[in-house]
Amino acid sequence: MSDIISLDYGSGGKKTSALIEKMIVPLLQNDVLSELGDSALVEGAPKLSFSTDSFVVSPCFFPGGNIGKLSVCGTVNDVAMGGGIPKYLSLSFIIEEGFEVEQLEKIIQSIGETAKKAGVSIVTGDTKVVERGRGDGIYINTAGIGFVKHDGLSPKKIQEGDVVLLSGTAGDHGAAVMLARNSNLVQGNLTSDCAPLNKIAEALMDLGSDLRVLRDPTRGGVATTLCEFIEGTNLSIELKEDDIPVAPGVRSACDILGLDPLYCACEGKLLAVVHPDRAEEALKIIKSFPEGENGAIIGTVTAAHAGRLVLKTSFGGSRVLTKLTGAQLPRIC
Amino acid sequence: MSDIISLDYGSGGKKTSALIEKMIVPLLQNDVLSELGDSALVEGAPKLSFSTDSFVVSPCFFPGGNIGKLSVCGTVNDVAMGGGIPKYLSLSFIIEEGFEVEQLEKIIQSIGETAKKAGVSIVTGDTKVVERGRGDGIYINTAGIGFVKHDGLSPKKIQEGDVVLLSGTAGDHGAAVMLARNSNLVQGNLTSDCAPLNKIAEALMDLGSDLRVLRDPTRGGVATTLCEFIEGTNLSIELKEDDIPVAPGVRSACDILGLDPLYCACEGKLLAVVHPDRAEEALKIIKSFPEGENGAIIGTVTAAHAGRLVLKTSFGGSRVLTKLTGAQLPRIC
Repeated sequence: MSDIISLDYGSGGKKTSALIEKMIVPLLQNDVLSELGDSALVEGAPKLSFSTDSFVVSPCFFPGGNIGKLSVCGTVNDVAMGGGIPKYLSLSFIIEEGFEVEQLEKIIQSIGETAKKAGVSIVTGDTKVVERGRGDGIYINTAGIGFVKHDGLSPKKIQEGDVVLLSGTAGDHGAAVMLARNSNLVQGNLTSDCAPLNKIAEALMDLGSDLRVLRDPTRGGVATTLCEFIEGTNLSIELKEDDIPVAPGVRSACDILGLDPLYCACEGKLLAVVHPDRAEEALKIIKSFPEGENGAIIGTVTAAHAGRLVLKTSFGGSRVLTKLTGAQLPRIC
Repeated sequence: MSDIISLDYGSGGKKTSALIEKMIVPLLQNDVLSELGDSALVEGAPKLSFSTDSFVVSPCFFPGGNIGKLSVCGTVNDVAMGGGIPKYLSLSFIIEEGFEVEQLEKIIQSIGETAKKAGVSIVTGDTKVVERGRGDGIYINTAGIGFVKHDGLSPKKIQEGDVVLLSGTAGDHGAAVMLARNSNLVQGNLTSDCAPLNKIAEALMDLGSDLRVLRDPTRGGVATTLCEFIEGTNLSIELKEDDIPVAPGVRSACDILGLDPLYCACEGKLLAVVHPDRAEEALKIIKSFPEGENGAIIGTVTAAHAGRLVLKTSFGGSRVLTKLTGAQLPRIC
């Protein structure tokens, strides 16, 4: 830890992990928090999946969505990845003095539409206003409660031979937001993939214990999420570069901006690890949803390189992928 | 509604109500949200009390507490006022680049200590970092879940003849924070009352349906909260100025700063409205807790002035108190 907080600490990568594991968790010690999932399973009948995220995306309107839509999708997806069927959301605004009411109304409209699409209700909330120069337009926090359908999802359940699926193209959200920030670049038709994933997740949960883990690869992207799955274990994940769907526009934008789509955030895609015998069935389930039409099997779990994520490149080589270092994409969500 | 958001919209008074009632609720319509409590009761077994608040208090350290302690107390208290026994909290940080890690550690320590005192577990969280100049040190959001013990608490249950109790002195938090902002003034021994109230609330719930409503008078203070209880009804509340406990230091500070203690936020006091036959018993319960030692009966519900809050002054006169207008105390919580 350094003495002051730098942007890296919000990257979702190594420094964020350090802050959480070296300071937050030790000071707030309890068994549920120590699991460090994006959502927590707590007692209740049925058990509850509970999650929260604050959204600080810049700009707050971007192709394919805005901070309001994102704030519903992000928390709905975290609750769903935790094995829950999302039901209720809280909604809290921190608005900078001078923000246009018309923009706020559009954002709240998106929140309402997205909540309806996801089948969740916004049931409680809060509004704070800070002085001009003490915020950046609008920040939103949502927290979500779901009733648990599958209480066994965990990276710890991953076994040798398991298969890794991605429900669509990688990096759309990250690339769209970064391009939106660079107004001098051609926007093309690149849009964020921002979408609720709870219906796909619920369907995949019917695979029972053959479904090992679900996760939406947001900050840090597909590569960072997969690294987190296997770090500290004896397992490795081998990805085939040619099998990972990436939209042509995202590939071009990443080339221009010097980014890697595997580290760019998705906001409407999930990673699923399943028993090899159920991989084709899982893919069929994913593809049966409009948001999953580009779903693919992208890799397998092996015992070859303990704790490592290995990319088999198009050119026949191998590259080890590590967790995101530094703030490649600050304020992406 | 004006075209841009001004600080008034975060005051907890009339403009905040307008924003919530004219924009947020209509766009996100559902029966639970329409209740507009500080927490929501949702289905579950037992029923759940769910609440959230974002904390933007300035300065983030003040006599008697800091933003971390406040962020636990605020949500614990909202869940408790909704009839719940708080169990789980989420915790989300928006940190400004450059914030000192040592300060962050102190804040998280307070969060841990306060959570322990309140008997709740922090089970999930999130951390975002924004660039220098896009925040103000640190903002914190918490959301809380409680299991419902009393599902009938509502201002709608208030009846003519009921008695209004306040669990201690009014306005301590607001006065302490305002004084902390004016570093050229003598601080004296004025401290925020910031404290978890769930134990007092739980004990009061044993009064059953004779306990009509509980509420912690935060933004907008005692006066605004009581106005909200009766607005649009045929009832009025009569307060006796001499019966309302106000600490001498708070009274002096309010005199200097031109504030009214009845509009200053409390963060460790609750208002309870009870059946007249149970008022003495309720007062005894409140006074049995250290945080309630200065508790008092402060007023009664009458049918004299429909929808009005009337203060019988020390000098024998009457004054109508309305909801807070404008941002008397921006960023008090």
